[in-house]
Amino acid sequence: MRRMSGELVLIFYILSLLLPLPITTASSWCSIKGLPLVRNISELPQDNYGRGGLSHITLAGSAMHGLKEVEVWLQTFSPGSRTPIHRHSCEEIFVVLKGSGTLYLASSSHEKYPGKPQEYFVFANSTFHIPVNDVHQVWNTNEHEDLQMLVIISRPPVKVFIYEDWFMPHTAAKLKFPYYWDEQCLLEPLKDEL
Amino acid sequence: MRRMSGELVLIFYILSLLLPLPITTASSWCSIKGLPLVRNISELPQDNYGRGGLSHITLAGSAMHGLKEVEVWLQTFSPGSRTPIHRHSCEEIFVVLKGSGTLYLASSSHEKYPGKPQEYFVFANSTFHIPVNDVHQVWNTNEHEDLQMLVIISRPPVKVFIYEDWFMPHTAAKLKFPYYWDEQCLLEPLKDEL
Repeated sequence: MRRMSGELVLIFYILSLLLPLPITTASSWCSIKGLPLVRNISELPQDNYGRGGLSHITLAGSAMHGLKEVEVWLQTFSPGSRTPIHRHSCEEIFVVLKGSGTLYLASSSHEKYPGKPQEYFVFANSTFHIPVNDVHQVWNTNEHEDLQMLVIISRPPVKVFIYEDWFMPHTAAKLKFPYYWDEQCLLEPLKDEL
Repeated sequence: MRRMSGELVLIFYILSLLLPLPITTASSWCSIKGLPLVRNISELPQDNYGRGGLSHITLAGSAMHGLKEVEVWLQTFSPGSRTPIHRHSCEEIFVVLKGSGTLYLASSSHEKYPGKPQEYFVFANSTFHIPVNDVHQVWNTNEHEDLQMLVIISRPPVKVFIYEDWFMPHTAAKLKFPYYWDEQCLLEPLKDEL
């Protein structure tokens, strides 16, 4: 028994050597404590959160920095990648820093489903905003360049209703909460305190 | 009398030829009607609003675009120029795009006056946020380069309390509302409708 315990301890020790990075990172991401007030964007956590072609960085936000009214993301979409078709009950402003793409926007939230969206060309040094609850999708339709944008939302953390297509009824859209980049912090809010 | 009237009409006609630009621009800035959804930032109204060394552009906002929860500015400060020492009852996030400078921040809002502020170096590709009601000032202390930032605020339009120095009591700080860039729209809200 003593020997078995020793082996188990060794296994856990080795595992703890292999695994600490994501755990430490997750818990340190989710605490406002110890974060410098001025943060170098190049050193902030960046991930695709399981979505191919995406790079997401939360510059300042609810789960990570304790903000209550506004949140800012830096997002890069590789050619062909896109957001889901979705809506959220908050204001959203985009500032396009690099590349170009297409905004699909259906304003008919009074109908039963979004319907065929209008298409807008978006480009570097342009800005646009999405009215509260309008169903939309942003797509990097430029085959050659990344599409990089600053995205600003109100009422964080974001609660997103996702549509499979433009003719899915609003009532069938599926709530994704916490959203991809909020999952680690909102599902383990007290990790740092324990 | 007839001749006099004719001269007056001519004078007013000439004046109207000289003056229409700011007047037309003011009224068209202040209406959401007719604004394209996707806007080229280079074509948006830009002004210093009487503050030397400042270039301010409202990318998306309350007075101009009907947003209620969040507002985004693109601001450029020439070397030596700065914001007033001020506070506001909203969240504010900065993303530094170019240059560098100094953030002065006094967190002691529970004292009678701000007191000597802490100094933080801010630089291109950095981000920081100002807690609600903390007294602060951003100063382009770099002698050689413009300081360009995206500034995001909640609860627009912004209501700013300005301090003459760091030892002025909070109760003596002077409310500036509407703020410089909101004046034209908020003081003439119905111009377009008349």
